[in-house]
Amino acid sequence: MATNTREEYIDWIRDAHGMEMQAAKLLESQIGRVDSYPELKAKFKEHLEVTRRQAERLESCLKRHGEDTSTIKDAMGKMAGVMQTFGGLFPTDEVVKTGIASYTFENMEISSYSVLIGAAEHFGDAETARICTDILREEEEMAGWLKSNIPNVTHQFLSRAETGGPAKR
Amino acid sequence: MATNTREEYIDWIRDAHGMEMQAAKLLESQIGRVDSYPELKAKFKEHLEVTRRQAERLESCLKRHGEDTSTIKDAMGKMAGVMQTFGGLFPTDEVVKTGIASYTFENMEISSYSVLIGAAEHFGDAETARICTDILREEEEMAGWLKSNIPNVTHQFLSRAETGGPAKR
Repeated sequence: MATNTREEYIDWIRDAHGMEMQAAKLLESQIGRVDSYPELKAKFKEHLEVTRRQAERLESCLKRHGEDTSTIKDAMGKMAGVMQTFGGLFPTDEVVKTGIASYTFENMEISSYSVLIGAAEHFGDAETARICTDILREEEEMAGWLKSNIPNVTHQFLSRAETGGPAKR
Repeated sequence: MATNTREEYIDWIRDAHGMEMQAAKLLESQIGRVDSYPELKAKFKEHLEVTRRQAERLESCLKRHGEDTSTIKDAMGKMAGVMQTFGGLFPTDEVVKTGIASYTFENMEISSYSVLIGAAEHFGDAETARICTDILREEEEMAGWLKSNIPNVTHQFLSRAETGGPAKR
């Protein structure tokens, strides 16, 4: 029995790694869609670098558990499907929808790391618990930034739409 | 121009109403899938009542803006599609996935209300701003509860799976 739950736990780390690889792709695409919102664009660029380091740290966790690169890559395909579905939730290119999608995705990450930390503690895997706690704080920082800035972005979007400026992106 | 952004604003309130109607359906289905986790079940039941009152309050905002019941109902179809997509993100019945899905959905709601509050202030619609601020606090309370309880639910899930107890739900 214990072996099954441990395998499930390794699967969850693998999913988190795939989630960050897909998050990087999502951020790359979002960076190109917020040209008229330079603060948002700068924050997405900063978080892209954070996200890439997170993926590397999760890869180190998987390697410590004896996972090789090929099984790590397999999981990326699974998460790609999830991300595609996620993108479909917010089909327009309105900047406010980009804000909602980013904030929602950050919080999917936050709850996934809450699960992972609980599981890492359950299995006495202190190093993964430590790494996931660090990553969780980074995701919380990004989510907090988005939450603080969404009302202002909304106001800018509406003001620009009313005066004929570049509103959507 | 101003008329267009105002129409867009009313659309956002309509979408929020549809989101709460679908949230109620999601909660009804989740209540039936967490029988072995009575605290989670009780919280979902409590939040279902909160959600129904939120939908009523948003309906009052739409009526103040002259929207009739038929246009309110139209938006529900649109949100049903979004919710179906959302459900597809987490296809398994594992309780930890239910936790992640619920927390993620709560935060989609939180960011949607941040947008709505910014827009209501932009248009000087104090009553909608007030109602959405109340609802935002309720969603934050639910999200906070889920975040606090997810690590423990994860631990219970793994412990029960290891001892052959009712783990999944």
